[in-house]
Amino acid sequence: MRPILPAIADEQFQRGDVPMTKREIRVFLMAHAMVQPDDVVWDIGAGTGSLSVEAALRAPAGTVFAMDGNTEACDLVRSNARNFGLDNIMVIEGKAPAALAGLPDPDVVFVGGSGGNLAQILEESAQRLKPGGRLIITAVLVETLHDTLQFTSQLTDFAVEACGLQVTRVEPVGQRHMLRALNSVYAVICRKGGQA
Amino acid sequence: MRPILPAIADEQFQRGDVPMTKREIRVFLMAHAMVQPDDVVWDIGAGTGSLSVEAALRAPAGTVFAMDGNTEACDLVRSNARNFGLDNIMVIEGKAPAALAGLPDPDVVFVGGSGGNLAQILEESAQRLKPGGRLIITAVLVETLHDTLQFTSQLTDFAVEACGLQVTRVEPVGQRHMLRALNSVYAVICRKGGQA
Amino acid sequence: MRPILPAIADEQFQRGDVPMTKREIRVFLMAHAMVQPDDVVWDIGAGTGSLSVEAALRAPAGTVFAMDGNTEACDLVRSNARNFGLDNIMVIEGKAPAALAGLPDPDVVFVGGSGGNLAQILEESAQRLKPGGRLIITAVLVETLHDTLQFTSQLTDFAVEACGLQVTRVEPVGQRHMLRALNSVYAVICRKGGQA
Amino acid sequence: MRPILPAIADEQFQRGDVPMTKREIRVFLMAHAMVQPDDVVWDIGAGTGSLSVEAALRAPAGTVFAMDGNTEACDLVRSNARNFGLDNIMVIEGKAPAALAGLPDPDVVFVGGSGGNLAQILEESAQRLKPGGRLIITAVLVETLHDTLQFTSQLTDFAVEACGLQVTRVEPVGQRHMLRALNSVYAVICRKGGQA
Repeated sequence: MRPILPAIADEQFQRGDVPMTKREIRVFLMAHAMVQPDDVVWDIGAGTGSLSVEAALRAPAGTVFAMDGNTEACDLVRSNARNFGLDNIMVIEGKAPAALAGLPDPDVVFVGGSGGNLAQILEESAQRLKPGGRLIITAVLVETLHDTLQFTSQLTDFAVEACGLQVTRVEPVGQRHMLRALNSVYAVICRKGGQA
Repeated sequence: MRPILPAIADEQFQRGDVPMTKREIRVFLMAHAMVQPDDVVWDIGAGTGSLSVEAALRAPAGTVFAMDGNTEACDLVRSNARNFGLDNIMVIEGKAPAALAGLPDPDVVFVGGSGGNLAQILEESAQRLKPGGRLIITAVLVETLHDTLQFTSQLTDFAVEACGLQVTRVEPVGQRHMLRALNSVYAVICRKGGQA
Repeated sequence: MRPILPAIADEQFQRGDVPMTKREIRVFLMAHAMVQPDDVVWDIGAGTGSLSVEAALRAPAGTVFAMDGNTEACDLVRSNARNFGLDNIMVIEGKAPAALAGLPDPDVVFVGGSGGNLAQILEESAQRLKPGGRLIITAVLVETLHDTLQFTSQLTDFAVEACGLQVTRVEPVGQRHMLRALNSVYAVICRKGGQA
Repeated sequence: MRPILPAIADEQFQRGDVPMTKREIRVFLMAHAMVQPDDVVWDIGAGTGSLSVEAALRAPAGTVFAMDGNTEACDLVRSNARNFGLDNIMVIEGKAPAALAGLPDPDVVFVGGSGGNLAQILEESAQRLKPGGRLIITAVLVETLHDTLQFTSQLTDFAVEACGLQVTRVEPVGQRHMLRALNSVYAVICRKGGQA
C-alpha cells in the first residue's frame, strides 16, 4: 500500500462550480485533524467533499458523514468518493444542526459552511465531540471568523488556536516561476480537553 | 474639475486576456510615482495600459510612452486611452530597450514586463532617468524580483526600497463580507539622487 | 520646497511603546485620504501621530486634530509634531466621541483606535464629515473589522471599500535580501457622496 | 502514549537569539516530510533544532542528524533535544556538504540554512536521498528561493512543488482578537521518484 501523501492534488477532485479547499490548506487542516483509522468524522458544509475524501482515506475503519444543503454539492461528494473508491463516506443532504441528530458522536468535526446556523452548529459539535476530539472551522467570511471566535472564547476545557493562511503558489512558467496567490482562509482549531 | 481618485476602478478598463495591475496595487504604485503635471513617463510592458492611464491623468501637460511587444496589449492601451479621453499616451509596439532610443528622458519609469531584456531595460532606464526621477519595477516572477534586486543593489546615488504586497479584498456578499485575495506583487522602487 | 515623499520613513518618528502605522501602510492610507492644503483632519486614536504628521504636512493651511486617551501617546504626537516643525496639529487628550464635540467638521477622518466606542465614533464621524470627505478606519482586531463593516454596510450615500494589506519588506542583508513581514492591517475606506 | 500533536508550541523550545521555524510553519513542513518511525533525517542549518525535535519524536527508531555551523545553535539543539528526552538527535557542528560525507543516506532532508553552499548541499542531498525520500527547503531570502528553484527545475525524477506561506496569528487580547503576522517563508518540497 502506498503511503497517503500530505494531501491530494486539486486536479484529482471533480469540482463543478462549488468552491474547494485547496491542497496547501488541506495539508494544514488534515495535520491538525489527526484523523485516526477508526474515527467518526463530520464534514459540515462539505462542498466538493475534498476534506471528506482526505479524512475517509485516513479512516478506513471509520465513517465520514458529509453534510451539505446543496444538491449539486452532495452529488459532487458522492462522485468524488466513488472516484477514490471510498465506501466510508455517507452523504447527508440537509441542514445542520438538524441533520446531525441521529449521527454517532464525532472524533473530528470540520465546519466549512453553516447555512446561517453557525452558532447552533458549533454548540452541537462542541458538545458531542468526544474527549480529545478536534473541531476545525474554516472561514472566508469576516462574519464567520468573528462569530466563531465569539463562540470559542466562551469555551472551557477546549484548547483553541486560530490563524489566517495566505498561500502563494510558486508555479513554473517555462524556465521561470510565477507567484499566484490562493484565496486567504482563516482556520480556528479547537481540541476538547486539550492544552494549546 | 473633480480631484483624481487614488486610483481608477478595475471595471473602468478594457482588459481582454491581458493581465492588469489591480486597483489597490495601482494606488500604491502611483503614490510612489508622484507623477507631476508635465512629467515624461515610460511604461515598459504596459499590458492593458492601466498605469499609463493613471499617469496620463496626472500629467496633462506631459507625455506617457506606453511600450509593449504584444499587439493585443497595444490595442488595449489605445482603446483605454481613448475611453478616458487621453491624447497624451503614445503607444509604441516594440521591444525595450531598442524602442527607448528616440524617447525623451523620463521622470518616471514603470517596468511591468521585460520580454527577457530586464537587465538592459533597467540599465537604460536608470541611466536616462532625470535627477529625482523614479524607477518602479513590479514583479510577479521570482526571477524578475531576484534579477531586479541584483541590479538595484549595484546602484549608487539611488534610494531603493522593495516590498511584497498581498492585498485581500473584503467584498460584500449579501449582508456579509468575503475575503478574496488578489495576486501578490513585489514592487521595487528606486529614486535617483534620493534618500530612502 | 522639496516635494513630500509618498510617506515618511519609520525611523523619523519617535515611537516609545506605542504601536505605529508602518510606512507602506501610510503610503496606501494617505493616497486614499487625498488630504488637500486647507483640510480639517481628525485622527482618532492617533497613537504616535504618524498619520497626523503625514496629514499636517499635506495641509499647511489646515488643521489636524489628534485625539488619544493615552497620555504617553499624546506626548509622542506633540513630540513628533515638533520634530517635523508642524504647528497645525492640535493634540486632544480625551475620549471620542465626547472630545469631538467642539471641533470643526472634518474633510478627512482616520480611526485607528476607539477606546471601546467604535459605533458612536463612526456614527459621529460619518454624520459630520463634509460632502466628498473621506473616513478611513484601520483595524488590527477582528472585532474592529467586523463592527466597522456592520456599520458601513448600513451607510447610504457613501462609497465604501475594504481590504487587508499584508506587506512583506524585502530588506538588504549583505549581498542578499530577506523577507520580513509587517503586521497585517485591514483598511475600510468610505467616501461621502461618492461612487466606489 | 499520548499522540504527537500536529506540532509543538513555540514556547516549549529554548531559542536564544537563533531564529526558529514557527509552529504553524512546522505543522505544514512536517505534514510534507511524513517522517516514518525508522527514518534517517538530515536537518541542515538546524538553528534551534525545532524541526530536528519534531522529526525525532516521529522517528523513535531512526536518527536525526542536526547540522549547524554556529556553536550557539548547536548548543541549543542539544539543549532542546535533552528537554524533550530525545537521544536520537546527533548534533554535528560543521559545514555542509563536507559534514554530510560520513552520514547514512537520508529519507528526509530539511535545508533551512546553507552557509553559502546551497547548490552543493542541494546536489548532495538530492543524490543521496533514498527513493521516495523528501527534500524540503525553506527560504526567507529571495536569493535562496531563486537559487533553489533554479536547482529544482533541473531535477528529473523528482516531484517538486513550492509555495509561500504567510500566516497571521489570531491572538486573544481580553475579549477581542488581534491579528499578528508571522514572518513569510517560502517552502520548496521535492519527492524523489514521486509524482506531484
